[in-house]
Amino acid sequence: MGIVVKKYGGTSVGSVERIKNVARQIIKAKEKDTEIVVIVSAMSGETDRLITLGHEICRTPDEREMDMLVSTGEQVSSALLSMALIDMGCPTISLNAPQIEILTDKSHTKAKICKINTDRIIKELNREKVVIIAGFQGITEEEDITTLGRGGSDTTAVAIAGALQADVCEIFTDVDGVYTSDPRIVPEARKLDIISYEEMLEMASLGAKVLHSRSVELAKKFGVKIHVLSSFVDAHGTIVTEEGAGMEELLVSGITANAKEAKITVMDIPDKPGMAGRLFSALADANINVDMIVQSETRGKTNDISFTVDKTDLQKTIAVTKESVEKMGAGSVVYDQDIAKVSIVGVGMKSHSGVASLMFKALAEHDINIEMISTSEIKISCIIRISAMKEAVRVLHKSFELDKKG
Amino acid sequence: MGIVVKKYGGTSVGSVERIKNVARQIIKAKEKDTEIVVIVSAMSGETDRLITLGHEICRTPDEREMDMLVSTGEQVSSALLSMALIDMGCPTISLNAPQIEILTDKSHTKAKICKINTDRIIKELNREKVVIIAGFQGITEEEDITTLGRGGSDTTAVAIAGALQADVCEIFTDVDGVYTSDPRIVPEARKLDIISYEEMLEMASLGAKVLHSRSVELAKKFGVKIHVLSSFVDAHGTIVTEEGAGMEELLVSGITANAKEAKITVMDIPDKPGMAGRLFSALADANINVDMIVQSETRGKTNDISFTVDKTDLQKTIAVTKESVEKMGAGSVVYDQDIAKVSIVGVGMKSHSGVASLMFKALAEHDINIEMISTSEIKISCIIRISAMKEAVRVLHKSFELDKKG
Repeated sequence: MGIVVKKYGGTSVGSVERIKNVARQIIKAKEKDTEIVVIVSAMSGETDRLITLGHEICRTPDEREMDMLVSTGEQVSSALLSMALIDMGCPTISLNAPQIEILTDKSHTKAKICKINTDRIIKELNREKVVIIAGFQGITEEEDITTLGRGGSDTTAVAIAGALQADVCEIFTDVDGVYTSDPRIVPEARKLDIISYEEMLEMASLGAKVLHSRSVELAKKFGVKIHVLSSFVDAHGTIVTEEGAGMEELLVSGITANAKEAKITVMDIPDKPGMAGRLFSALADANINVDMIVQSETRGKTNDISFTVDKTDLQKTIAVTKESVEKMGAGSVVYDQDIAKVSIVGVGMKSHSGVASLMFKALAEHDINIEMISTSEIKISCIIRISAMKEAVRVLHKSFELDKKG
Repeated sequence: MGIVVKKYGGTSVGSVERIKNVARQIIKAKEKDTEIVVIVSAMSGETDRLITLGHEICRTPDEREMDMLVSTGEQVSSALLSMALIDMGCPTISLNAPQIEILTDKSHTKAKICKINTDRIIKELNREKVVIIAGFQGITEEEDITTLGRGGSDTTAVAIAGALQADVCEIFTDVDGVYTSDPRIVPEARKLDIISYEEMLEMASLGAKVLHSRSVELAKKFGVKIHVLSSFVDAHGTIVTEEGAGMEELLVSGITANAKEAKITVMDIPDKPGMAGRLFSALADANINVDMIVQSETRGKTNDISFTVDKTDLQKTIAVTKESVEKMGAGSVVYDQDIAKVSIVGVGMKSHSGVASLMFKALAEHDINIEMISTSEIKISCIIRISAMKEAVRVLHKSFELDKKG
């Protein structure tokens, strides 16, 4: 067998007992796989504790020093897990990013990995040791410590798996895989055995929180097979891999819902070139992420534009939009927080027509009104009333027969 | 002005408020000294918290992993202090042992410094930054993290001061200097302005806990001038330096007392060569540190040997001694825990006779019986009843006129 990379999140190593439990799992796995590399997050709560400490010192702590501070969390958990394994008779060594040389750029608190030196890891694997790596960390050319930002340990795991050409990168988490929909909304939601990188990316960006988009992108780039599974239940989870071979022949793989956006509509915009561009440049300059955009047909000499943003950005968005509207000589600005976005995701859409119409028909049959539509190659999203969100998800899940094994 | 090295202990950086306070002190000092290097311990309680965590994982944690774990404490405090300084407008950078290259041997948890690379420190000083260094840490040739054992941050500070040929190494602590005796026993005890390395070493080994012997030895070796002072009171403390120049002309510099030893006596040892050697080899093999040893005059064909050990080693000592006694064909073994050691320390003894007799006379005048005596070039220690310890210290402090400025 080749190398297996295993990543355990903060909850999985959240206490002394859980760390010992992870150690026992690794020893069990060691009986099958010759070479094991483990990436760990900080114990749950530890990173927050350190960040709070930094913010007690000052309002905006220096980012280089913040990385020095926060990166200790992963060093602690990796050392503890290594101790547990050694105590159980399993030769092990913990390594941090400087010891390995996980080179990143200089963007402290959100650094990107440039290069990984695998020499030390391979040396320790050849000594028949399990190698435990502190996730989330990197080091610059100047030997300053960096951190990788949100989802950082997943990124470390996938990057290490890529560099070592590992057979698989197992991401242990507190859910047991990727589901066709949120089981809290759709009780019949089914765990997927396999899903493509592209679908996983759409699911992640639409709010399914199993894997951070960045690690999925990296896995796609380096062809790393990811296996998402539970650290508490011993069962197969979901494989994230190349589209095609072994994939279920599903039209749609998942239904997601997102109630975190708000809709803004600018009325009566003069029908002249450059109007939309002016508005969205102003929003981009204010660092506001716009999701869906719909422009109405021109009525007379004006049209309306509706777009959605994160509710947290709503106040800022209204202010920026009103300012632009004045300059453009447009009409009023209205907003609506009671909306939700439901989406269907599936690589099957690429080669099948009629998926969109099936979606719209299913919603219409249940009197669910569609207010905005946006599509990509493998995704269709509709804005509806927030009150209809759960029903919409259930309806779509049933219409696309996701409760039945494909 | 040249380089000043400042070391702050765990109490001095024990809270966010105290860290900010230290930052303000450094900024004040920066107005006078061009170049400042700061060494910090972990926040008080943090090292213990980490050690406990390690021991919750297993009874005897792997020592390499223990160093990975425990060394994070100093990284946290150095990053926090650096943040505080930067926030106050003072350019600062924190560095850990791997970033500097504080090379040590491989003796994890009690490593010795072999070599310090000053390149990075000097580079940052040239950038007009205050350099904050995580104390207590080192790194091996193989880039494994080590820690320096008890008093480790003091050792880091002195070693860095030596490598940088700093003007002075200021050790900030929770007392304001070195006293002629313990002020809790002798209210008239006086703070010494200056003391020699040799005297400080004797004081440290006799139980005065201001500085760890190891750092004083290192300071002596590299001729580093140490200044012990309080981090809470802004006042001159005690300088520890070469004997001679500027030194007060004192016969005796300090009186110390130690109630932590017990006395063991082996009766009726056959008066043959090799008897004492056999006993003390057995004790050394059992890793027991013997302090004072006194052998009686031979009476008939036997003699008695008395010696002192730490009370914590008493049970083990009795067991080992009884075993040896049987083999030697000696008599009974008796022990006594109600003893104390009082000592006078002073480089003046080297050139003055009559110091010992003055000590014995002073104790005799107060009916304090001397049970054992041991002397070195700059120290005389007497074993007395523990009940007389405090009185003995006060009597000696007065007899040698330590309450009066020399």
